[in-house]
Amino acid sequence: MRLLAQHSPDFDPSLPWLDLEVSVKGETRLFQQIQAVRSSPHTDRRHAFTRLLCPDWVNVVAFTTEGEVLFVEQFRHGVDASTLEVVGGVCEPGEDPGVAGRRELLEETGFAPGRWLSLGSCAPNPAIQNNRCHFFLGLECMPVAALDLDPSEELRVWAAPWAEAQALLRNGGLDHALVQVAFLHLFQWEGWPEFLATLGRG
Amino acid sequence: MRLLAQHSPDFDPSLPWLDLEVSVKGETRLFQQIQAVRSSPHTDRRHAFTRLLCPDWVNVVAFTTEGEVLFVEQFRHGVDASTLEVVGGVCEPGEDPGVAGRRELLEETGFAPGRWLSLGSCAPNPAIQNNRCHFFLGLECMPVAALDLDPSEELRVWAAPWAEAQALLRNGGLDHALVQVAFLHLFQWEGWPEFLATLGRG
Repeated sequence: MRLLAQHSPDFDPSLPWLDLEVSVKGETRLFQQIQAVRSSPHTDRRHAFTRLLCPDWVNVVAFTTEGEVLFVEQFRHGVDASTLEVVGGVCEPGEDPGVAGRRELLEETGFAPGRWLSLGSCAPNPAIQNNRCHFFLGLECMPVAALDLDPSEELRVWAAPWAEAQALLRNGGLDHALVQVAFLHLFQWEGWPEFLATLGRG
Repeated sequence: MRLLAQHSPDFDPSLPWLDLEVSVKGETRLFQQIQAVRSSPHTDRRHAFTRLLCPDWVNVVAFTTEGEVLFVEQFRHGVDASTLEVVGGVCEPGEDPGVAGRRELLEETGFAPGRWLSLGSCAPNPAIQNNRCHFFLGLECMPVAALDLDPSEELRVWAAPWAEAQALLRNGGLDHALVQVAFLHLFQWEGWPEFLATLGRG
């Protein structure tokens, strides 16, 4: 990479800002909201930043033994509408992300995977959140249980052939950023070309 | 798609929940936080949901006239570390997303595009946020101005050849979910194969 420009001649983006005042502004089931008044290591100016301390999240791309993708349809209160997503959820305190992914898959769909692979992780929003979203691939998923939903969780489970899943990804039918990232990570999985070839035969 | 299971026999995920009590819990530069106590259209049970009402966001994949990708390196207070991202920002009230994207590109890098295309949009987090992130592609970008940063904004601008940008995307060097989605949308752009062929000659 070539450096084109920077804030100031001595600028070093790896230098942390200094916390001057940190206060908890609120707490929900989803995050603890922090306000941090910080001073720049470069200018000594003070600015207030909002930070949302969140548990890690998981998203699971799950293929059935028939090579169909599992989707969950539910009402989402952020956008005030119904969405189609892959299985996802929140890691419990201390819970391994892979365990959380298998738990969410079982609870939300009743399916368990024959093979289970990590697809890496990303930062959902490094500007304001501290958490990561972990992606997993469930292969050879089989129905093993009934749905086991939280009291506020109401959803439908769908199975789509790959061609239809791919069309949904392209036409906006899968609108959730982290669902789209899950598929990008699937496409970057070293085993994807070989697995994709098996789907065509399904 | 095949329906595999659902919450209850009469379940319809498109039915909205009913607001019983809505209160503003806080307001920052980034969002207004709402608590909505809502009743399910299926069970009449009450649940409290956190909603973050946010302005729309923009992310811009910008290629220079030399076919390099522009990246911004800056300290991010959510993850408390430095990140590498494409140009991004927040739409001002009433601002067209395309105008916001060009404005952010100019402010953060000093570059202006020769060609400007929409790459669509997505919901950053439909579970709790109401906003959209809009993606744009800037082609034939040229340096036309000095950086014009907000007081709390301190950053570096880099230009990377496509091979290096692609490697960063694969090896976790571009860790922000919405940056990854921006590149997924680029790969789904109908002109991508033809444009990619020109990068190899760069």
